[in-house]
Amino acid sequence: MNLETTNEVEIIKVATSKINQVDFENLTFGTIFTDHMLVCDYRNGAWERPTIKPYEPFTMDPSAKVFHYGQAIFEGMKAYKAEDNSVWLFRPEENHIRMNKSAVRMCMPEVPESVFIEGLKELLKIDQAWIPKGIGNTLYIRPFMIATGSGVIAQPSSEYRFCIILSPAKSYYSGDVKVLIADYFSRAANGGIGAAKAAGNYSGQFYPTQLAQEAGFQQIIWTDDATHTQLEECGTMNVFFRINDTLYTAPTSDRILDGITRKTLITLAQDKGIEVNVRPVLVEEIITAAENGSLKEIFGAGTAAVVSPICGFQYKDTYYEIVKPENSYAKLLKDALTQLQHKLTEDKFGWTIKI
Amino acid sequence: MNLETTNEVEIIKVATSKINQVDFENLTFGTIFTDHMLVCDYRNGAWERPTIKPYEPFTMDPSAKVFHYGQAIFEGMKAYKAEDNSVWLFRPEENHIRMNKSAVRMCMPEVPESVFIEGLKELLKIDQAWIPKGIGNTLYIRPFMIATGSGVIAQPSSEYRFCIILSPAKSYYSGDVKVLIADYFSRAANGGIGAAKAAGNYSGQFYPTQLAQEAGFQQIIWTDDATHTQLEECGTMNVFFRINDTLYTAPTSDRILDGITRKTLITLAQDKGIEVNVRPVLVEEIITAAENGSLKEIFGAGTAAVVSPICGFQYKDTYYEIVKPENSYAKLLKDALTQLQHKLTEDKFGWTIKI
Repeated sequence: MNLETTNEVEIIKVATSKINQVDFENLTFGTIFTDHMLVCDYRNGAWERPTIKPYEPFTMDPSAKVFHYGQAIFEGMKAYKAEDNSVWLFRPEENHIRMNKSAVRMCMPEVPESVFIEGLKELLKIDQAWIPKGIGNTLYIRPFMIATGSGVIAQPSSEYRFCIILSPAKSYYSGDVKVLIADYFSRAANGGIGAAKAAGNYSGQFYPTQLAQEAGFQQIIWTDDATHTQLEECGTMNVFFRINDTLYTAPTSDRILDGITRKTLITLAQDKGIEVNVRPVLVEEIITAAENGSLKEIFGAGTAAVVSPICGFQYKDTYYEIVKPENSYAKLLKDALTQLQHKLTEDKFGWTIKI
Repeated sequence: MNLETTNEVEIIKVATSKINQVDFENLTFGTIFTDHMLVCDYRNGAWERPTIKPYEPFTMDPSAKVFHYGQAIFEGMKAYKAEDNSVWLFRPEENHIRMNKSAVRMCMPEVPESVFIEGLKELLKIDQAWIPKGIGNTLYIRPFMIATGSGVIAQPSSEYRFCIILSPAKSYYSGDVKVLIADYFSRAANGGIGAAKAAGNYSGQFYPTQLAQEAGFQQIIWTDDATHTQLEECGTMNVFFRINDTLYTAPTSDRILDGITRKTLITLAQDKGIEVNVRPVLVEEIITAAENGSLKEIFGAGTAAVVSPICGFQYKDTYYEIVKPENSYAKLLKDALTQLQHKLTEDKFGWTIKI
């Protein structure tokens, strides 16, 4: 793949920043974007020179393959501002590696480090005023790649656009999340694209999630599509179960995303002496644990919400409430992670990268 | 959903047609587009007035949901020119119904008949000079809908664009197609979006198909993702198997597209006295039939290629050649269908619709 060093980033700055028009106290997640974006086009078998330029619309042919065949992948990351105004990324190389794994699965070109990592750092330097301070507040980073080549024939595109856009985000509490365990719909097939952060995996969840929301649940816990007996992901997050004092989470597979928050929480939990058991988790055993009182917690783990505690789940006709324990692992791990990301505790893992 | 009658189509014509720049003898499928397209936007819970206007690029926000979450669906149809220059559509109401089924599954608004059918007819009247004459030559029609609303949060968009673009196509012979039977990769999950004509279903096939092509096969016959024992689709087509003088094809399901060519061929075959058995078809029985000589034909069925005969298949390490029979059902059905579409034979089914 084309991973050769590209030229330095070309930079075109806005004449006037729009930052003063933004109400930073009332941010809706993912809706406000900073002054600049990074754009890099792939043509004739190579990545062109990346450009940082004013955030502005794309011009695309109506037959662009992203519109017809969904050849599109993305990543979710965050930048953090420490008390001393220094700016930090969290394990960005993991996002870069995963983006390129997604690219291979979707027949798209891999993105060189000089564009993904170095380009992102340049962009963050320019728009760092947009990173809100305070624990939990972040600048959400959305790297993505779309197939821009034209033609309504179901074949991989020969042209692509890689782009990074940035959106300031307030710390938020997702509230009491009730979930429905899927017993008909699914998000991924064996041998499918569930492990790739591919656009099509997300829109496929909208309809089942809407039905769940109409029934009073905020999210779905996805199960394996063949038997609906194994618990796999929660909404767009990985999912953890605490039975007594042990955490359980499913192993990654071609149906389950290799979440960076997931693997970070596993390490943090083990570091705190919590036993983590990575193995298939059955619907049946969670119901038994809920019934006998050993199910202490369920929580989702992902970049956007970090940790999302679940207060109850429905399986077929029965609702099971989960009584929040005093020593919540969800809270313990979320606090440990956000303090580490905001440079309030020592990073002995080497996960935080200064810009 | 918003199916109320919209206003009449607004029409903005090109100043000068580009038709004289097109080499109609050397058309590559899906790459040349006509002078005009139909565009209709959905905002504030309603479809706006549809417009027929010059084919031109879209302007879209980098955070448009189609780029990030793959909320995109399409249809494939054709217009045919008869000897007397009259223009015909083939079962367009079936495409309209299926588009709206896909829309529901992908949480998108249904498209009213006044836009999909009546808008298409208007567009075809304006660009009818682009429909090549001669049996097998057609104007390929691509209706599609994309999520244009902005915001990088995984939720259904509130804004959409429906569009119809047109591409002249020559009759083509797909050559001797060798296929590989999938034993690891899959295209759809139980309870997934395989039955919707959703963009994400197509890009997910690119990588496995590329691997198959590198191994000397043109297409993959997809199997069920759980057991890989049932034969489901071939590339982007439905698939038929002829054992002795009976045709077999899988029933449609939430993994298999309800193909219009598929259902048309079933009716045409039955009309000609051929027995058609719609039931799950096992890899095992096709191998047995290939070994004992009762497997006479395999062919794909879809709008683009109509009928695509397969000359052999590989399963794991063994390649099975299919000797073309003298009285090929693939040829019989393809001829019957294309003659009917081009108004060379009587249409006793009422499938052809005059523009």
